[in-house]
Amino acid sequence: MNLVSLSEFEREAHKVLPKNALDYYKSGAGDEYSLRLNRTAFEKIRIRPRCLIDVSNRTSECEVFGVKYSAPIGISPTAMQKMAHPEGENAVAKAAKNQEIGYTLSTIATSSIEEVGQSAPDYSKWFQLYIYKDRGVTERLVRRAEENGFTAIVLTVDAPIFGLRRADLKNHFSLPPHLTMANFTGELATGVKGKGGSGINQYVASLFDASLNWQDVEWLLSFTKLPVLVKGILTKEDAELAVEAGVHGIIVSNHGARQIDSVPATVSCYISAIFYNVY
Amino acid sequence: MNLVSLSEFEREAHKVLPKNALDYYKSGAGDEYSLRLNRTAFEKIRIRPRCLIDVSNRTSECEVFGVKYSAPIGISPTAMQKMAHPEGENAVAKAAKNQEIGYTLSTIATSSIEEVGQSAPDYSKWFQLYIYKDRGVTERLVRRAEENGFTAIVLTVDAPIFGLRRADLKNHFSLPPHLTMANFTGELATGVKGKGGSGINQYVASLFDASLNWQDVEWLLSFTKLPVLVKGILTKEDAELAVEAGVHGIIVSNHGARQIDSVPATVSCYISAIFYNVY
Amino acid sequence: MNLVSLSEFEREAHKVLPKNALDYYKSGAGDEYSLRLNRTAFEKIRIRPRCLIDVSNRTSECEVFGVKYSAPIGISPTAMQKMAHPEGENAVAKAAKNQEIGYTLSTIATSSIEEVGQSAPDYSKWFQLYIYKDRGVTERLVRRAEENGFTAIVLTVDAPIFGLRRADLKNHFSLPPHLTMANFTGELATGVKGKGGSGINQYVASLFDASLNWQDVEWLLSFTKLPVLVKGILTKEDAELAVEAGVHGIIVSNHGARQIDSVPATVSCYISAIFYNVY
Amino acid sequence: MNLVSLSEFEREAHKVLPKNALDYYKSGAGDEYSLRLNRTAFEKIRIRPRCLIDVSNRTSECEVFGVKYSAPIGISPTAMQKMAHPEGENAVAKAAKNQEIGYTLSTIATSSIEEVGQSAPDYSKWFQLYIYKDRGVTERLVRRAEENGFTAIVLTVDAPIFGLRRADLKNHFSLPPHLTMANFTGELATGVKGKGGSGINQYVASLFDASLNWQDVEWLLSFTKLPVLVKGILTKEDAELAVEAGVHGIIVSNHGARQIDSVPATVSCYISAIFYNVY
Repeated sequence: MNLVSLSEFEREAHKVLPKNALDYYKSGAGDEYSLRLNRTAFEKIRIRPRCLIDVSNRTSECEVFGVKYSAPIGISPTAMQKMAHPEGENAVAKAAKNQEIGYTLSTIATSSIEEVGQSAPDYSKWFQLYIYKDRGVTERLVRRAEENGFTAIVLTVDAPIFGLRRADLKNHFSLPPHLTMANFTGELATGVKGKGGSGINQYVASLFDASLNWQDVEWLLSFTKLPVLVKGILTKEDAELAVEAGVHGIIVSNHGARQIDSVPATVSCYISAIFYNVY
Repeated sequence: MNLVSLSEFEREAHKVLPKNALDYYKSGAGDEYSLRLNRTAFEKIRIRPRCLIDVSNRTSECEVFGVKYSAPIGISPTAMQKMAHPEGENAVAKAAKNQEIGYTLSTIATSSIEEVGQSAPDYSKWFQLYIYKDRGVTERLVRRAEENGFTAIVLTVDAPIFGLRRADLKNHFSLPPHLTMANFTGELATGVKGKGGSGINQYVASLFDASLNWQDVEWLLSFTKLPVLVKGILTKEDAELAVEAGVHGIIVSNHGARQIDSVPATVSCYISAIFYNVY
Repeated sequence: MNLVSLSEFEREAHKVLPKNALDYYKSGAGDEYSLRLNRTAFEKIRIRPRCLIDVSNRTSECEVFGVKYSAPIGISPTAMQKMAHPEGENAVAKAAKNQEIGYTLSTIATSSIEEVGQSAPDYSKWFQLYIYKDRGVTERLVRRAEENGFTAIVLTVDAPIFGLRRADLKNHFSLPPHLTMANFTGELATGVKGKGGSGINQYVASLFDASLNWQDVEWLLSFTKLPVLVKGILTKEDAELAVEAGVHGIIVSNHGARQIDSVPATVSCYISAIFYNVY
Repeated sequence: MNLVSLSEFEREAHKVLPKNALDYYKSGAGDEYSLRLNRTAFEKIRIRPRCLIDVSNRTSECEVFGVKYSAPIGISPTAMQKMAHPEGENAVAKAAKNQEIGYTLSTIATSSIEEVGQSAPDYSKWFQLYIYKDRGVTERLVRRAEENGFTAIVLTVDAPIFGLRRADLKNHFSLPPHLTMANFTGELATGVKGKGGSGINQYVASLFDASLNWQDVEWLLSFTKLPVLVKGILTKEDAELAVEAGVHGIIVSNHGARQIDSVPATVSCYISAIFYNVY
């Protein structure tokens, strides 16, 4: 196909994906203003190139938690990847391993922790955690990640409930019947059914713990030996609280602009006064 | 119809409303620059979300003048709603009651104070007041609002004359013959007839009092026991005068950008230097 | 035709004017960036309306050089108006008189000073002056303006040569053969012929005095008893020199963005730092 | 054809050039954001015209290294011009001579130093230099420039490797078979062949010296008697290093936005804080 840029891959995806899945993957919250901002914000950033520096030896390698990567790039956790391709999360994990870049598996994946562990063995994968109301279920997820070669826990902290994505509301988004939330059994595995609205929103509202707070972070830190990162921080205030709580890393993210519209672009938070609340 | 956003409702309205009515409802003054600004100004506002705060118990409830609402949202007074639907203001008042949100009836409604009072009884409705040259007519409106269960008077202060809305000028806007200004009798009820221009502009120019000033606010406060809010304030200077005059509330508004083009967006006045004249 | 805004009149003009004339009237210099800016610059200006001020008596009247106008609005001098309509400058002067607004006749009009003087008698008209290399010709223009009821001289100071307007270059712009520069005889009257380029540019380059400077302003002030305004000032520095030279008025203008592209919008010069060179 | 602006010439070129060549000439790096910025940045620049200054004698002449030019404008070195026309660099050099403006021949031209020297004799032409890994090859280029009437060396300092231009990647850009890099023989002359990607990128990566640094500038200054300019400076820091290195001139340039996307527009670097790193 001779694709040479991300936008060309995206255009191809629009051709082959079923509407239900495509809409789920590509939607942002509300009017999708922040979704657009996530792209246009890059236009405010200027690279100031220096010249006449010997670049015959150059590398984009970096190291995180003692692991070397070929570039400071990783694949963020995204849910239900088998809607796009039968190999789903397994194929993505293998690709990440081949390219030596970061990979994080979503809690609400359509491939299980064990399956992905075997698809990309001997490779440092991270596991993204949603905290279910049922803390036993939650702890078991962490244990399984530890047992299957995952090397860090990425705790999502910006999704006590899910954002309103209008396409999912209109589509009454459901997980296709041949797929399940592969890390679970029973209702937790099959419960994404759009009954007059977005099935994923209803699933999250009934099963995720909306009371999530910093004490839950302490609880998580208390029983896992893996490093814990909190994902979804957008303000300096929360970054400071994260440091105080003793987490091992922060992932600045607006969740692909899928949770709240009018939030700043993720990339802007790294460089702008919005993060520091000094404007 | 499965409509999930305001813009989808708006799109549907464009399909079903007669041109004369649609143009009246959707037009802004002049080039409609401020009309567009009323929407685009939201793009300048950023939400800075905090995370890991227990949100299992959450509410958007608020209280105004001792009355509880389900959300800090209300329906602004808009004129002549029966042009859109036979139930007009009555249906809107009922909907507001059902949703427990604010509702204000326009002076120039196509349903009378008494009718709307009975459509949504036992509910805290407000009444928007235009001051007619005939002060007896004006005082009688306030008395009828008091007698029919309305709990506040919203005095419009930004419309001594009406703005130039080009579509109304071109359409020679008239109230459809089967409708009247239901709060009045005679010429005051049937006088919106476009004779070579906008009928509503001619009605307002001949009947509204263009000499309106802060002494009229004092006059209103002197004879009604209801709280009085002034609607249409856009500057800090006028907000301070309103406080001095003893009103019970201020509604910052640019009148849907229907009065003067090039005014700031309503939402910007809450947060910007334009309001404070310090730029 | 029921036209209710300037843009609608403009749209009609596009339908009826010959291309040669339309292009001449509507073009700006170069890429026409400043031409667009002349409109969009208004979007940066905010009106801050005050309310509850008695506006039952209101007027837009103003007075300039002892003459009353119905509004602070006037018709700028524009060249060769008979290309648009057989009555040309005469019709426009009559309309200005009827509306009691300002009017300035161009030196390079297709109606003569005498003709326009008679078309709108007993009315305060101004005369716009280009200084020809032949000072005798120039002085005679001023004398004729004085003798025909014109009450001020508007000296254009931003056109020692004319700007490059691409449509005129492509059209090889010529004055239509049935028209002349009506204030002149011979070559000065008929010399706008596009010989492989813009005829008006060639006319100006051969006949206008590109050495124009402040001493010429003094010369003009020395022999006319009419007030003299300089038109085309865009900077504080030149405004100050104009005051020192003793002129009676300044017209801030970028010449409809027809002279130099990338100049600021005229309206911006009244309110922005560009004029004051302090940015 | 009656073309009166650069954009019209560009439009014509789009009609006549083969896709492979057109894409090569018009592409910028990455998303081409800086390519667009190279044009739109001019919209931020305002000309503040002064008036009433005698401009009857005016000139755009300027002098560089003791040579007079008709205007402070020159033709930047661009590669492989025979893809556009059989006369290629020779025609462009002749045109520059005729117009008395600057001209710089590219190292990777499709016409040789000797050919262009004879096409535009007795005229001050500059030679743009890429430093090949083979320093003997590089020095010989400089000697040939000296011997063929070139009067300055323009050392490109922003291209140790070439930027990713997506159209070239998709086209597998190759130099058309009837053309060669005319300043070279063997593989250096014919090596631009797109084997599964951009041929020019592969050529540059294999032959240009990516270790280029300020010591190479000193090396160049040590053996040529011609003035040396460094082309591709975008920061104040590098400009200062260039002065310290003793070069005779600096050409501020972002290489037509062909090397790195998100760099500032060239024109902005002359006037903005980006250059000075003070924002």
